[in-house]
Amino acid sequence: MSAAEYLSKGRDYIDSAICNYMPEETVYPVSIHKSMIYSILAGGKRLRPILVIAATEAVGGNREDILPFAVAVEYIHTYTLIHDDLPALDNDDLRRGKPTNHKVFGEAIAILAGDALLTQAFYLMTHSGLMNAVPPERLLQAAHDMTVAIGTSGMIGGQVVDIESEGKLVDAKTLEYIHVHKTGCLIKACIRAGAILSQAKTEELEALSNYGEQIGLAFQIVDDILDITADESLLGKDVGSDVDKGKATYPALYGLDEARKKAEKLVEEGIAYLEIFKNRAEPLREIGRFFLQRTF
Amino acid sequence: MSAAEYLSKGRDYIDSAICNYMPEETVYPVSIHKSMIYSILAGGKRLRPILVIAATEAVGGNREDILPFAVAVEYIHTYTLIHDDLPALDNDDLRRGKPTNHKVFGEAIAILAGDALLTQAFYLMTHSGLMNAVPPERLLQAAHDMTVAIGTSGMIGGQVVDIESEGKLVDAKTLEYIHVHKTGCLIKACIRAGAILSQAKTEELEALSNYGEQIGLAFQIVDDILDITADESLLGKDVGSDVDKGKATYPALYGLDEARKKAEKLVEEGIAYLEIFKNRAEPLREIGRFFLQRTF
Repeated sequence: MSAAEYLSKGRDYIDSAICNYMPEETVYPVSIHKSMIYSILAGGKRLRPILVIAATEAVGGNREDILPFAVAVEYIHTYTLIHDDLPALDNDDLRRGKPTNHKVFGEAIAILAGDALLTQAFYLMTHSGLMNAVPPERLLQAAHDMTVAIGTSGMIGGQVVDIESEGKLVDAKTLEYIHVHKTGCLIKACIRAGAILSQAKTEELEALSNYGEQIGLAFQIVDDILDITADESLLGKDVGSDVDKGKATYPALYGLDEARKKAEKLVEEGIAYLEIFKNRAEPLREIGRFFLQRTF
Repeated sequence: MSAAEYLSKGRDYIDSAICNYMPEETVYPVSIHKSMIYSILAGGKRLRPILVIAATEAVGGNREDILPFAVAVEYIHTYTLIHDDLPALDNDDLRRGKPTNHKVFGEAIAILAGDALLTQAFYLMTHSGLMNAVPPERLLQAAHDMTVAIGTSGMIGGQVVDIESEGKLVDAKTLEYIHVHKTGCLIKACIRAGAILSQAKTEELEALSNYGEQIGLAFQIVDDILDITADESLLGKDVGSDVDKGKATYPALYGLDEARKKAEKLVEEGIAYLEIFKNRAEPLREIGRFFLQRTF
């Protein structure tokens, strides 16, 4: 199966699951559910849940067994997008070609919708549906690992430094800190979660962590590149918005060519860690390569 | 031990634990840790962690065994205060006699500090320190139960209806919805958590849930009353701020006397549920009575 096919089938699989774990938008209070569903169904690629699944399958697990956890990471991703777009943070009006959450529902509901999606993510990570196949100790370990990845020593730390670096001259070390933490930590944690839940051995978890670290950073570098080179209608947001905001980016610091080479090297090194999994890691390899080829 | 003594000792116990589980404010990125610590150390009564402990002790458990979970609920409470105070929500400048988080650290950091405290709460709820004494299944159950209590069918639901009711004429049913959800659900969940973690029997958990439901609502009614009658220097925020914001309150709907009678009746009924615990529930009884007597 090609990467495009694997990702497209994975997206459909996650899409059909995503609303099963969400109150319908007619449930009182209606506005918050409408707001959550608006953003969760805004058409993401579902890369993070697919990475949970691909890691689970690399260590011989079944995607059905860990489905609520895979959905949870998309909720986490969506909460960060809603809060990031707020006027006090990135102040974005457009996301995936649609008005951002606070533009539609107002700031108060957008803040609470983000909070609710994060809460609902933990609801899913401790969901009884996971306990048929996953030992409770592993479930606790994966959930705990996720909290570290998305807390102040991980994703939130990256967001903070990103905000505080706007309009400033940023050195290479700070830029790498921002990208590794803001984007890389969650991507790595998704891969680790799949492995932990499906009872990966120590060396398997280590290999997947290393792979995740490399492709997590590569993903964000490509994001920076696409912000300059992409077709606006495909990207779904303003091209050049990083530059406009004075954001630190890899192309700004290294130039487009160097940035692309760095991303390619990271993916190559990441894929090299997957050798022990033989064919079972083929989807992860394909996803790594896809990260370099994506156009939005 | 009197309620005042139990609460004061409980507060000291929680205060000394609270920073053990928090990165120091010198840890990079410094601003977010300073912001989190500012609000968590702003001098709360630590009622919610004390309720976790008191419920644990009512069913024969040890407070040391569940300490990270008790601290977690204070993080949750603090996150809600930071987000509630934001300009887009209640727009409060003062909390516990000090400038609110966003007044000191700016809105972006305040939003992220709230997110980080919620995340750190789940870090604590899945903390390995709990696993010495608490079976992992119970830990997952307590954490899951908490997510329901603080999600859109619980606390966030209450916040949403509260915001959407501002300046409107609110009927008794809506007012009760707001109070039960915005405040009551977390209080009830704290009591349930202590019970679940310490392996309460079904009838014990049910009795404590009923107690929690009654005193949770009573707590918020007294809060409404104090907003009118309290000494501003003790309350730490503007007296009359509910009225100024056009908030729905029990005294506004029923009058001060009726509101007080309702709170007294709820506490009395709540305490009646505790009979099966005999002396072990004495702190919970005292806390219920204290809820009526508190002056801030």
